[in-house]
Amino acid sequence: MPADKKGSEERILLAHGSGGRAMHSLVREVLGPLIRIEDFRDAATVPLQEKDRLSSELVFTTDSYVVSPLFFPGGDIGSLSVNGTINDLAVSGASPLCLSLSLIIEEGLPMDSLIRILRSVKGAAEAAGIRIVTGDTKVVNRGKGDGLFINTSGVGAVRQGVSLSPKNVTPGDVVIVSGSIGNHGMAVMAERNGIVFDPPLLSDTAALNGLVEDMLSHTTEIRVMRDPTRGGLATTLKEIALESGTCIEIEEERIPVTGSVRGACELLGIDPLYVANEGVLVAFAERSVAKSLLDRMKENPSGRGSAVIGCVKKEPEGTVVLKTSIGGSRVVDMLPGEQLPRIC
Amino acid sequence: MPADKKGSEERILLAHGSGGRAMHSLVREVLGPLIRIEDFRDAATVPLQEKDRLSSELVFTTDSYVVSPLFFPGGDIGSLSVNGTINDLAVSGASPLCLSLSLIIEEGLPMDSLIRILRSVKGAAEAAGIRIVTGDTKVVNRGKGDGLFINTSGVGAVRQGVSLSPKNVTPGDVVIVSGSIGNHGMAVMAERNGIVFDPPLLSDTAALNGLVEDMLSHTTEIRVMRDPTRGGLATTLKEIALESGTCIEIEEERIPVTGSVRGACELLGIDPLYVANEGVLVAFAERSVAKSLLDRMKENPSGRGSAVIGCVKKEPEGTVVLKTSIGGSRVVDMLPGEQLPRIC
Repeated sequence: MPADKKGSEERILLAHGSGGRAMHSLVREVLGPLIRIEDFRDAATVPLQEKDRLSSELVFTTDSYVVSPLFFPGGDIGSLSVNGTINDLAVSGASPLCLSLSLIIEEGLPMDSLIRILRSVKGAAEAAGIRIVTGDTKVVNRGKGDGLFINTSGVGAVRQGVSLSPKNVTPGDVVIVSGSIGNHGMAVMAERNGIVFDPPLLSDTAALNGLVEDMLSHTTEIRVMRDPTRGGLATTLKEIALESGTCIEIEEERIPVTGSVRGACELLGIDPLYVANEGVLVAFAERSVAKSLLDRMKENPSGRGSAVIGCVKKEPEGTVVLKTSIGGSRVVDMLPGEQLPRIC
Repeated sequence: MPADKKGSEERILLAHGSGGRAMHSLVREVLGPLIRIEDFRDAATVPLQEKDRLSSELVFTTDSYVVSPLFFPGGDIGSLSVNGTINDLAVSGASPLCLSLSLIIEEGLPMDSLIRILRSVKGAAEAAGIRIVTGDTKVVNRGKGDGLFINTSGVGAVRQGVSLSPKNVTPGDVVIVSGSIGNHGMAVMAERNGIVFDPPLLSDTAALNGLVEDMLSHTTEIRVMRDPTRGGLATTLKEIALESGTCIEIEEERIPVTGSVRGACELLGIDPLYVANEGVLVAFAERSVAKSLLDRMKENPSGRGSAVIGCVKKEPEGTVVLKTSIGGSRVVDMLPGEQLPRIC
């Protein structure tokens, strides 16, 4: 039966994960047409282009997605799991080659929800121009999962001459974010708490490989890039401060935050600096290229909201300092507890 | 606090998956020393050896493990998830390069269990000589998972001159299994049903990359290899029969099954042909090399129980026929339902 014709009442059964006939049918009929897993063998061969074959290194990454709810304004677990793993590869400086997709489905998940999510997987992969080449499907008993968990892993090729590392960060560098922060986390939190915003608060989930490509072809003076997901911008900056042994000074007024996110954060008592982003990167670059790099970033739809938000100082080493809009300053630490569980 | 000193009462909290301080501490203190994830960045670079760099293809695979219970005679979810993914790479003809490890932990999992499982991950990876290079940790609320799910993905290098495919299977070929079947599935089922055997029924979970290396260096006349996991030997053979358009004829008397597995299967009303294996491969080879290949396989500890169990006929195409020990024959199909859920 083609996926579209599956009855809206149909639900996932344990048999769909057994390795037998029901699973074969699920893979061929539902997964196959939607995401073009060309072959259903246990391992896929991935052709390498000439330029990739010259590289002496691969980049490899993995992420499991357990976001709750599965659907949220601006995206769902499907697009999130594709974009998130592409972004991990992209910000490491690699050119993403391919992804894997592994589903842990809870018995009873409506087949319609699965199909909707797989369409979203397909859409996100196509938008980013990255193929999903291998996959896996498991089903767990009702009450032993939460609808759907997705793992995506990704392989990338190292770009010639690109070496990004927090160790490259030097006093004097500027700190750039590619857009307004906190949208993903607050969209999920608002959905979970039944809060509606007007205009609606949307997740920023998006693949950043195109933006990174633009940035790296524009200049060789980028030190390091990261995507501030769980733990938010604050945690990412603190990690870089520790690994580079520098002080990162950011200015509250220059950090882009939309009115909706600011409102939602105030309502829920959350600091936007700690809220997860899924379509924003933070980059450290040599000061002299800041202006032209920013202009280049703004030309890309994913970088339209780019802004310089701070700079790197020598000390105190390993710290992040926020200059507040009322003229004070405070030390920013990592997220201490479970402020926003299951955001990705 | 070093992992060993963690109190036996300690349990995983939602905060351990938040991306903040608690997660950093878990990764560094518990994961770090045990499995040597050398760096905790989101993506790892994997150096390639000269010979791998000449290849025009990579092999990529993924599997999520949801086995219940987490600990079973002969192994646990940790060793299983390492061996299973290595085996998917190995039987595809690739030389495994590295693995990723992604944990979905249920809030409340005893820290001791996590540490025991991660030790098992480390032991299995070291035994197989394959490094885990990147990882991820998520925590889901109590009642929304089942202790622990693990995803491992793996990257392998294609061996020069090796091209395994069911399309290569030709009438006249012999069918070889590397050991007795059904041990993994029945060990898990026995544990789940509280049945004790004497001698104990142990899972066969083991990495087969060494055995495959021996086989491929011995002969170029191997057509295809598979590891018959979920769905068992029957489902794997049926897949190969369909993909090769041949008839696979196997002889019941020649299929190695231990007395304990046979007894457990009778007790639970299960056909060993459909029971999952995690340390056995099935290989199709040109008839003339069968004897010497079998001798070579038996020299490897993982192949000591190797046996020729049948041969390939021309028709009826796409079928598997079992010659029974009482002289009859029956058609073998894929596992139809959910005979053995959550076996891997």
